[in-house]
Amino acid sequence: MQNICNMPGRIISEAEGYEILKDAGINVPKFGFAKSEDEAVRAAGYTGYPIVIKISSPDISHKSDVGGVVTGIPDQESLIREYNSLLSRVSEKMPDAQVTGVLIAEQVSPGTELFAGGTIDPSFGRVLSFGTGGTLVELWKDISFRLFPLTPEKISGMIDETRASSVIGGFRGAPPLDREALLDMLGKLGDLFEKRDDIVSFDINPLILTESGVVAVDARFIIDDDVPEPKVEMPEKFCTSEAFLSPKSIAVAGASATPGKIGYFVFQNLLEFEGRLYPVNPKRSEILGVKAYDSVSELPEVPDWLVICVPAKAVPAVLEDAGKSGVRFAVIISAGFRESGEEGRLLEEEILNIARKYDLCFAGPNCLGIMIPGLRLNATFGPKLPQPGPVAFLSQSGAIISAITDSGLVADTGVSAVISLGNQADLKFIDYMRAMERDPQTKAVVLYIEELKNGRKFVESVKKIIKRLPVVAIKAGRSKKGKIAARSHTGSLAGSWEIYHEAFRESGIIPAMSLTEAFETGGLLASEGWPKGNRAVVVSSAGGFAVLSADYAEDYGICLIDLDDDMKEELDSFMPSGWSMKNPIDMIGDAGVERYAKTLDMLIRYQDRWDIAYVAAAPVTSIDPVRLAKETVVFSRQTDKMVVGCLIGGEGMAPGVKVLNDNHIPNFSELESAFRATGLALRAAEEIMSFENAGETK
Amino acid sequence: MQNICNMPGRIISEAEGYEILKDAGINVPKFGFAKSEDEAVRAAGYTGYPIVIKISSPDISHKSDVGGVVTGIPDQESLIREYNSLLSRVSEKMPDAQVTGVLIAEQVSPGTELFAGGTIDPSFGRVLSFGTGGTLVELWKDISFRLFPLTPEKISGMIDETRASSVIGGFRGAPPLDREALLDMLGKLGDLFEKRDDIVSFDINPLILTESGVVAVDARFIIDDDVPEPKVEMPEKFCTSEAFLSPKSIAVAGASATPGKIGYFVFQNLLEFEGRLYPVNPKRSEILGVKAYDSVSELPEVPDWLVICVPAKAVPAVLEDAGKSGVRFAVIISAGFRESGEEGRLLEEEILNIARKYDLCFAGPNCLGIMIPGLRLNATFGPKLPQPGPVAFLSQSGAIISAITDSGLVADTGVSAVISLGNQADLKFIDYMRAMERDPQTKAVVLYIEELKNGRKFVESVKKIIKRLPVVAIKAGRSKKGKIAARSHTGSLAGSWEIYHEAFRESGIIPAMSLTEAFETGGLLASEGWPKGNRAVVVSSAGGFAVLSADYAEDYGICLIDLDDDMKEELDSFMPSGWSMKNPIDMIGDAGVERYAKTLDMLIRYQDRWDIAYVAAAPVTSIDPVRLAKETVVFSRQTDKMVVGCLIGGEGMAPGVKVLNDNHIPNFSELESAFRATGLALRAAEEIMSFENAGETK
Repeated sequence: MQNICNMPGRIISEAEGYEILKDAGINVPKFGFAKSEDEAVRAAGYTGYPIVIKISSPDISHKSDVGGVVTGIPDQESLIREYNSLLSRVSEKMPDAQVTGVLIAEQVSPGTELFAGGTIDPSFGRVLSFGTGGTLVELWKDISFRLFPLTPEKISGMIDETRASSVIGGFRGAPPLDREALLDMLGKLGDLFEKRDDIVSFDINPLILTESGVVAVDARFIIDDDVPEPKVEMPEKFCTSEAFLSPKSIAVAGASATPGKIGYFVFQNLLEFEGRLYPVNPKRSEILGVKAYDSVSELPEVPDWLVICVPAKAVPAVLEDAGKSGVRFAVIISAGFRESGEEGRLLEEEILNIARKYDLCFAGPNCLGIMIPGLRLNATFGPKLPQPGPVAFLSQSGAIISAITDSGLVADTGVSAVISLGNQADLKFIDYMRAMERDPQTKAVVLYIEELKNGRKFVESVKKIIKRLPVVAIKAGRSKKGKIAARSHTGSLAGSWEIYHEAFRESGIIPAMSLTEAFETGGLLASEGWPKGNRAVVVSSAGGFAVLSADYAEDYGICLIDLDDDMKEELDSFMPSGWSMKNPIDMIGDAGVERYAKTLDMLIRYQDRWDIAYVAAAPVTSIDPVRLAKETVVFSRQTDKMVVGCLIGGEGMAPGVKVLNDNHIPNFSELESAFRATGLALRAAEEIMSFENAGETK
Repeated sequence: MQNICNMPGRIISEAEGYEILKDAGINVPKFGFAKSEDEAVRAAGYTGYPIVIKISSPDISHKSDVGGVVTGIPDQESLIREYNSLLSRVSEKMPDAQVTGVLIAEQVSPGTELFAGGTIDPSFGRVLSFGTGGTLVELWKDISFRLFPLTPEKISGMIDETRASSVIGGFRGAPPLDREALLDMLGKLGDLFEKRDDIVSFDINPLILTESGVVAVDARFIIDDDVPEPKVEMPEKFCTSEAFLSPKSIAVAGASATPGKIGYFVFQNLLEFEGRLYPVNPKRSEILGVKAYDSVSELPEVPDWLVICVPAKAVPAVLEDAGKSGVRFAVIISAGFRESGEEGRLLEEEILNIARKYDLCFAGPNCLGIMIPGLRLNATFGPKLPQPGPVAFLSQSGAIISAITDSGLVADTGVSAVISLGNQADLKFIDYMRAMERDPQTKAVVLYIEELKNGRKFVESVKKIIKRLPVVAIKAGRSKKGKIAARSHTGSLAGSWEIYHEAFRESGIIPAMSLTEAFETGGLLASEGWPKGNRAVVVSSAGGFAVLSADYAEDYGICLIDLDDDMKEELDSFMPSGWSMKNPIDMIGDAGVERYAKTLDMLIRYQDRWDIAYVAAAPVTSIDPVRLAKETVVFSRQTDKMVVGCLIGGEGMAPGVKVLNDNHIPNFSELESAFRATGLALRAAEEIMSFENAGETK
């Protein structure tokens, strides 16, 4: 699973690997090591027949591929023959490989072949992997990951997540395998990997699991003797100023009256700001009609925010002045730092040191800026302010902020804050998210991530806020080419998508594949909160929507409940013959709003039986969309369960959709999106519940 | 894989199954059948040791689950012991099972375990399946399907599609297995299944494949002695009237002046029609200002279309009168036929017979009607006419037509025709599609399918038109609950989604999961035609879009080409330092339209090196969207390769998007959708190319 070409360190021999495992209390076959026929025979005397022999060479990672493994050798005569033919096969296929000897090992009885591995992710650190093993491991791709620190619950969960778990539990009447022994071995492997700083990665394939035990049969360790310095943990730098998300005064260093300049766009956008605004520019006495000041220290008050648009080289002096003056927060829009090369990197270190000195924290540098629509605060050099609303957007791409704030995606729901992260020299995703947690306006957060710094800390921090504040994230740079594109774009080294995905799962973050999906799901959660369970009902007068709903519910893991007899009877009392008599509740095409209202009324009385209700309709002559929307609002107010509008259409439906929007009820104009968003929310909610349970058992 | 509870027929014994296979020339183990210890010993004398014994009972489908299989019996003593303990185990676990005896079979040497099966799909008839076998078959779900009639190419393709094919080809240095023997066996199984009308389904699991041969080890056949009558092939009933999609005159039987009545809505909608319009209603002399006639036969001309909105019971008389008068095409909107029960079914048969008698064909009954926006023709009782355009929509759900015609999905691209299929008593999907093929307005078709009648014929017919006319289809009722919902909604029995999916693949139809996806992909193909290959370039000034593009390209199987040195040099001559130097071509955030224009100009000169170009931009200050759109139009006019606009935003981008729309260049406001739609088109295009190749080799 490891691309060894790009890894530091060296592969150690299998015999050394066995020794490491033995020392850690992990079961390995009896083995010996031979550099000659005689030594081979002697080693076999210790292990006993039948035996396996394997070539040992630092240059050969896939031994089977070069005929470097022979199994089932029954006796000494065969051993001598096979020993020699193995050596000649290998030297023929890989004449340049350095052969250190041959491993002689007890032949382990057959069992279920599993696999375990460890790797160090650049963002998240140590990761354990587990799955179906054997020679076809890369074919089946049945694998799960867990970030360190591990717990017995996490290890157990990683087994359950694989298809191998069915076999381990005793598939189709077969006896169950020794899960306890497997748990124990994975735990010991985790401890070993955590303790031994020099292990860069390892693969054990196969682990052979039987009804009564587990053996690590084939082990490959990569050791780096130059253990990298442990990363210096960044001091927890969180903008604690109460004014952070509600500034009353803003100064703009580098404000300009020259159209086309960044300092001009920023200042012009800020003219709308509801608080006090100070341009700082030593060359001008006023800018766009506002009195200008020579420096931050000369301002009539200490501004809550300082927005910096001066050229990179001038930033340290401005920041020093601001720090001395008592400024606590700055948005550094200026580019020309780490992203531009070595000189910029040093400049970035310099400004970080200045900030530390004065206990000042800052966004950026190299960012588009920050928006808080509720305060008419647009400290960016580009986009227009979107409508105020409950969703915060944190993005590592400025252009994506421009696209999103302009788009229909946030037009209905509205936005509480938009933050362009830039180089994240000081403030990082999690710092802003902590601030959002305290912000009464923000009910959900959407992240566009190219790279997380110190992902492990990120995960731990998110876990603490996720219940109050749902988070949806797009991780860009998932693919090989995408990762390269992200690197050239942000100068960062991103970890693998699988590990990010696991980090999101552990945190309770919802992984979205597109901006549309992210904002749809964020908007749903901002208005409805986490779903309380996965029991769903669908109400529709459109037969086609009923059919599609059932498909999408299955696709996205949402359980359409069976209607109980009492519910059916009530419905049947006012439905025309031919209604579906089941969930999805298809009320027939001639249904008017009255029939919807009666059905919703029934559902309120039985609201202990469901957790999510979809109200779906097409723009047909029998339905007045505004009246239907109003009934949906009444319905939603009577329950704290999740209510999802699916008034599907365009102009004809728009007046109804507006009523839902105004009443903070989410509406989807594509049925699949409604089910996808709720399904995504549900998967994360289940994860968060399991934390609760795990917490209780401790 | 078979849910035997719902199947007609009976399971035959494994010994009978072996006989059937042997007769078909398929390799099976040596075997015998025993009803006593003595017979078992005698049978083993014939097969030779080691042997396998298996319980034989029509009541036990999963023998291993009840301990009904013992393998590796080495000698007579063990046989006697195991024979008796097998019988007692089974009678303990399933005391009520009728045991007919014990199969004694040669133990087959180990090899790769595969699986093959056959089933009869209600829509598509006989289907062969193949995949990874063994006890974990249901865990791995590594399976492919092919519809009959089979060809050697199809069988070969179904092997290639599975992950098992990697093992068969010799995975990771292992010797390749006997693919020829496997092909031969699958061919023989296909022949057997085609010839034997009484075989309802079969499963062979495992097939054991080695380097030199294949054996069918475990066989289960379900036989139905009451062979169902072969379905009467519907005579090919295609509306050949030239007037079909360009009627000049329309009569409306049941036209009404009473608001709220269907005949009122339909007639009112038709008032816009550009041709001649005749209300037929014996009770009125005029309707909504138009002179009315007592009957069709009294009209001053034979109308090209007759739209029927009279109550179901009155339809036969109207149709008879129309047939006598020489009407060739009718749209029967009236409900109350097959969907309403037995009486309705008989009525439906009656109108079908009348139509046959007069060589008249009809749409419906029980449908919303038909729209042809280009003629201002709205023969429906609901929605408003959408804009004319190149995409035709054929739907089995009327409500979905209402939603779509109202929605933004067709607002930009426009629609050539909308057809509500209703009960499909006469005209079916393929009939309309053939008409669309001849329609110069229609460039792509979107289908909403709940059930296909005679799917095999559908597949054969679609293959003939798909190159000229791309088709995108949503199959609703994919899930178990969805299928049930569809059944109650349309009274039809739908086949399984896997089989539909395979039928779509074979036909070249693009499978869409949502209406949005379907119309986005249909719109793309209507303007750009089939892609010519999968080599793509992305041009963007937004770093985030470059990163996401690379991800989506990988997700959807689109190959982002490496830029050759000459291309890079040209770009480098005008790009600022820091541009990506690779594809996706990230031109840096400050790029204006000029830089886009130069890059597109370079791409035109190297247009032999790519097949798809994505032009992506966010609404940023440096870009004038109208100018960018105009440059994209110029670019697109110079190539017949696929050009995809990704001007992403809302109001800010709208003027640019309008320019693209007006010039028939597709635009996507979500990057993922652009890649998904092109990826879907590409998969189907590759399928269509492979038909061409297959054709050439014949």
